[in-house]
Amino acid sequence: MSESADALTARTLVTVTHDGRSDEVVVEEPLEIRVDGTPLAVTMRTPAHDEELALGFLYAEGLIDGPRPAGPTEDFAANIVEVSGPLLRDPAARHFYATSSCGVCGKGALEEIAVIAPAVGPGPRVSRTLLADLPERLRQPTFERTGGLHATGLFSGEGELLLVREDVGRHNAMDKVVGRALLDGMLPLADGILCVSGRLCFELVQKAAMAGAPVLVGVGAPSSLAIELAGQRGITLAGFARRGSVNVYTGEQRLQDS
Amino acid sequence: MSESADALTARTLVTVTHDGRSDEVVVEEPLEIRVDGTPLAVTMRTPAHDEELALGFLYAEGLIDGPRPAGPTEDFAANIVEVSGPLLRDPAARHFYATSSCGVCGKGALEEIAVIAPAVGPGPRVSRTLLADLPERLRQPTFERTGGLHATGLFSGEGELLLVREDVGRHNAMDKVVGRALLDGMLPLADGILCVSGRLCFELVQKAAMAGAPVLVGVGAPSSLAIELAGQRGITLAGFARRGSVNVYTGEQRLQDS
Repeated sequence: MSESADALTARTLVTVTHDGRSDEVVVEEPLEIRVDGTPLAVTMRTPAHDEELALGFLYAEGLIDGPRPAGPTEDFAANIVEVSGPLLRDPAARHFYATSSCGVCGKGALEEIAVIAPAVGPGPRVSRTLLADLPERLRQPTFERTGGLHATGLFSGEGELLLVREDVGRHNAMDKVVGRALLDGMLPLADGILCVSGRLCFELVQKAAMAGAPVLVGVGAPSSLAIELAGQRGITLAGFARRGSVNVYTGEQRLQDS
Repeated sequence: MSESADALTARTLVTVTHDGRSDEVVVEEPLEIRVDGTPLAVTMRTPAHDEELALGFLYAEGLIDGPRPAGPTEDFAANIVEVSGPLLRDPAARHFYATSSCGVCGKGALEEIAVIAPAVGPGPRVSRTLLADLPERLRQPTFERTGGLHATGLFSGEGELLLVREDVGRHNAMDKVVGRALLDGMLPLADGILCVSGRLCFELVQKAAMAGAPVLVGVGAPSSLAIELAGQRGITLAGFARRGSVNVYTGEQRLQDS
């Protein structure tokens, strides 16, 4: 949180030359997440907030339930983040799966792709007007410069932006928000609203459910499985939030007149 | 290829009710890829062309170098595709990694995330005008109905659309194109152009390189690593192809006046 905007930009953007002119593109680099020295996963991410990413990822996977010491290795350029264990369970015991944007990821049984998350709490009452307006409040300064970043924002039930994180990967952006919330003692997000800059797929709903967020809003379209999982977990799922309009697919009981 | 458009739509779209009206959303379901009966990976995908997806995925991972018999299990609803081996190597020997849109994926060493692909061949000469126009030629009938699908198109060097596939996951759409090309004996794509409907990340360049495609065009922004890998493999990488304009980041030697 103490990073200046300039220092952050220096890690997330790089200048390239194309067509005889200079332009900024978003940085994508691998990050290896280690727990007690053992490599657990590698993710392609935009540098910055790596500790948040690692902790949010582990939390969303059900591997930790509270903050853990985390930080880069001595060789900062190594793109490794070390997390102190222990984990709640053996990560190899989960049947891993590949998301729709993923390479080979290991074995999995179809019925075991979801980490079990409890149903979310009652959460805030929200108006359609508020939901439709959240993407506008989700400031994305870096996206505006490169067109290459996804963002996730955490809002209060009244629509105040509490936290925003950006990444080349939409799931990383949400992991960073969850990790920051974990470090700040804000989990579960009982009265929070999560808003994402893109489409709503199964895995984003899964991560929101693990974080206990009662409301998830996206600028883009939901998938069939995103709607199904949101319904099962009691989440209010809203898509196509743009230009003052929004579609609400599940959890309509939280809607109130504006 | 014999599927009718109606039959295809029935598998890829589902009608949901929200806000008191009916609407179509894109189907997202898990698919388990098995080789000789052993589960290898699960991917979240849009049903249809599952055999192409499995074969294209295995080809892009360097696990097969030619067509293999592939098909659904007897229980069609099981969302399993069976592929006959043998594989070229033990898939466990690769250090798996998670992409930016992925959950836990296993262990990996940073220097080993890329499957080695040879540099692509000389390929076609292309004009900026042609590159900028390709997204318009990449018809996306389903996207227009749901806003929820990514597409990958394979074009000839002259810009003729040879093949298009859609999926909730951008990587799956490309895997399906590569799998179809594999079945049709079109690999490597020595004179082909691949065009994607979204952003250009590392993994899409990696898949294009494995398929031998000399030119990769995207509607969206490239990441730093996408540009770096395209440069190393000799691929012409073009982004922001829209409204008659395009940025060319690498492989400018293939550009010609229109």
